[in-house]
Formats: sequence, structure tokens, C-alpha cells
Amino acid sequence: MVATASRSLNRKEVEQLVREVLTQKLRSRATPPPTREQHAVQQTRLGGPPHPLVVNVSARHMHVTQVDLEQLFGPGAELTKLKDLYQEGEFASEQLVTLVGPRQRIIPNVRILGPVRNYTQAELSYTDGIYLGLDLPLRISGNHEGTPGCTVLGPKGAINMPRGVIRAERHVHVGESDLAYYGVRDGDYLKLKIDGPCGLTFDRMKVRFHPNVILEVHIDTDEGNACDLESATKMELIK
Amino acid sequence: MVATASRSLNRKEVEQLVREVLTQKLRSRATPPPTREQHAVQQTRLGGPPHPLVVNVSARHMHVTQVDLEQLFGPGAELTKLKDLYQEGEFASEQLVTLVGPRQRIIPNVRILGPVRNYTQAELSYTDGIYLGLDLPLRISGNHEGTPGCTVLGPKGAINMPRGVIRAERHVHVGESDLAYYGVRDGDYLKLKIDGPCGLTFDRMKVRFHPNVILEVHIDTDEGNACDLESATKMELIK
Repeated sequence: MVATASRSLNRKEVEQLVREVLTQKLRSRATPPPTREQHAVQQTRLGGPPHPLVVNVSARHMHVTQVDLEQLFGPGAELTKLKDLYQEGEFASEQLVTLVGPRQRIIPNVRILGPVRNYTQAELSYTDGIYLGLDLPLRISGNHEGTPGCTVLGPKGAINMPRGVIRAERHVHVGESDLAYYGVRDGDYLKLKIDGPCGLTFDRMKVRFHPNVILEVHIDTDEGNACDLESATKMELIK
Repeated sequence: MVATASRSLNRKEVEQLVREVLTQKLRSRATPPPTREQHAVQQTRLGGPPHPLVVNVSARHMHVTQVDLEQLFGPGAELTKLKDLYQEGEFASEQLVTLVGPRQRIIPNVRILGPVRNYTQAELSYTDGIYLGLDLPLRISGNHEGTPGCTVLGPKGAINMPRGVIRAERHVHVGESDLAYYGVRDGDYLKLKIDGPCGLTFDRMKVRFHPNVILEVHIDTDEGNACDLESATKMELIK
């Protein structure tokens, strides 16, 4: 056979492949994938912003009410902490569920972020929505008017969420000092410029104020992959 | 039970679910999903650019050599046309393959775009790369130095691509008149501004000149989903 860009597998290559797969599997068991990984932090400087610019990619996740948690995980179930998130009191729980969409496809291992909320909500990327067969509306957390639902499977039961499946509108959490520094108000938009090989500028980054939070940008996995946040050489929040 | 955001499924709802799934399945058999869907076209005006601004999202796809095509589909195999693409002579073929990555996961139904090339290449999104377990390098088509490979399964055989799995660097195809209108040269960068609910500006859009093409932007599915191209209210190519 002539030398070509591709060829059939021989025994040695198959062995190599199996070895790699096993190594990967064992490694992935040891360290569960983070739910909301902190991808990029820009340090503050003297006279600069009150908080460093932290940009986090929100992987798909759910929030649940106590009633739904018990329906999924059994009577008396509680969320148990896997790890703390950046904002105080927020955490990735150990509880995972499976989502079922109208295309007869499922997304397993969707992590619940705690603490429990007064609404049940699934935040997915458009890539996930297309895969499941859901036309996701762009929403700020908690706004469920006209949103689709889906079936959620837990180890002790299933729920039929009538609504609450959304793509989270990209946003930046700010506290008092951040509002003052950037000269914006709750509900305004800022721009986030990412430099790098996949450089782009998010022209609409919704400002969400809460007195107990500090500066943190949330984008979803489609947005994080579009700009390849990991390879960013510079990040800037612009009015 | 009190009224809550979620509840268990009853028999009627299960029947409804099954009906919806069957309807979807039958519908999806009738119309195969497009491989490279033309999402947005901005018409030319008098005194405007020589060609309308066409932005297309490239779904994951492959190009193959004749040797690899025959390894996958049998001796004498040829690519057969499913539909024409925007650039003359380019087409989505009816041939589909399955990719296998190092995480023991597969992506089925990856379409081959014709005609056959002098290299074998898979163009995936970072979302696909993460799913498969491949750290995709950002490349212009045909540049395979230091790129990973993967296993490709066809109905008549498998190949082990030693390299050629990439994320395609976002780019704009231009002909002579487009170069002149935008005042750029091959290899330069333009910006693409997308207005809309998920508005953003792609700051790096590589200019790729060929005398036989006309203006067409290619972005991948992560990028198309990040800006929600379907909901774009305005598109602009900026120097």
C-alpha cells in the first residue's frame, strides 16, 4: 500500500488505543469534571477596578425547588456540596440528573447547583437545545414566561417540568463598588472584549446587580468555545 | 399535591410525549438535516458591495482523499451529491461516517463534503472536540502540522487518520472584486459584527482569496450558536 494520509489499524495501534482509553477513563474517575470552571481571571492593579475581572463558563446545569429535589432524589433529600462556586453561598452539588427532550435523546449527568431555589430551571447551551430538540428562549434566571419544559430523571423519580428550560442571557454579576467603577446600573449592558486566536467582543453583556455579589461574568459553553476562553491573551470589560 | 413548577407524568402526558416523538422522527426522516445551512444573507444595494454578505454555519464535516473514500466505502466508491453548496462545484455528499475519539465516545452521521480532496480532514467544533476528548488546534483547511487524528468508520471499513482533525479558523472567502471592495489582501483579517439579542463582533475573520469564489463567511456551530445567527437583525463586515 502506498504511503497515504490514512491507513487501517494494526494490532499494535489497537493496543495503544485501548491503553489510552483506559488511562483516560481512570483519570476521569479520579477527578470529576468541574461544573462551572473558572477559566480566566485578570488581576486588579493599583487605582484599577475594585475586583479582578473573573470570567466563568457556565456548563449546563439545573436549579431545583425542595419539592422537585425530593421527587427526584426521594423524601427528605438534601443537596450535598461537591465544591464551592465563586459567589459566596453558591455551590456545585453532588446531585446529577438526566434530561429528556422531544427528539428521544437524553443528556445525562446534569449537575444541580445549590442552594435550592424557589423555582426549577435548566440552563442549557443552544448546542444542547438543538441536540434535545428544544428551541431555547434567551432569558435571565427565573423568568420562565413562555419557556419550554422537559422531563427530568433522578434516581428516585421523574418530574415533568412544564417550563423553565432556557439559555441564560450572558451577564455580569456586580456589587455596589463594581456599579460605581463601571458607571452602570442594574439591567444595563457592558461589552466584554476577548483577545486571542479566536478573539471576539460580546457586545451585549447584561449587568445584574446584587449587594452580596462581586464582579463575575457568566457565559455559556457555546460562547466560551466560540472565543476559546482558555487561550485568551487579554480580557476587557467596556462600557 | 400543591401546585408546583413540576409534577410526575400521568398516562395522558406519556401518550402525548410518544406522539410528539413519533411525529418528530417521521418528519426528520422526510427531510435530512442540511450540512452547511445558509443562515443569513444581506442583500446588496446600489453602489454597495459586489456580492451580498452571506454568512454560513459549517456543521461538523469531513473531506477525504479517493484512497480513504474507497477504504471507507469500498473499492471504486464515489461521492454522490446530496445538494450543492454556495460555492460553485462544492457539494454535500450523501456519504456519512462515524468518528471515534480517545474518550471511547463516537460522533455518528458526519457528512463528507465533496469533491474529493488531496487530503483527509475532519472539521469539528470545540464542543465536539471536548466531547470526543481531542484538543483541537485552530487551523486553515489543509494545514495539518501537529494536528491530532482519530478513527473514522465507514460501512465498508475503518481508517486511522494520523492527523487532520481541526477546528477551522473562522474565515471569509473572497474573489477579486470582494478584495477590491473591502481593501484587503489574502491572509488579512476583517471583523464581522452581528446585531441581535446575542449580538457580538468576531474580531478575527481570516480573509481567504481564490479567483473562483464569491463572498461567503464561514463560522462553526459554536460561533453560530454564540451569536444566535438565526436571530441576527443586522450583519456587517468591517475592516
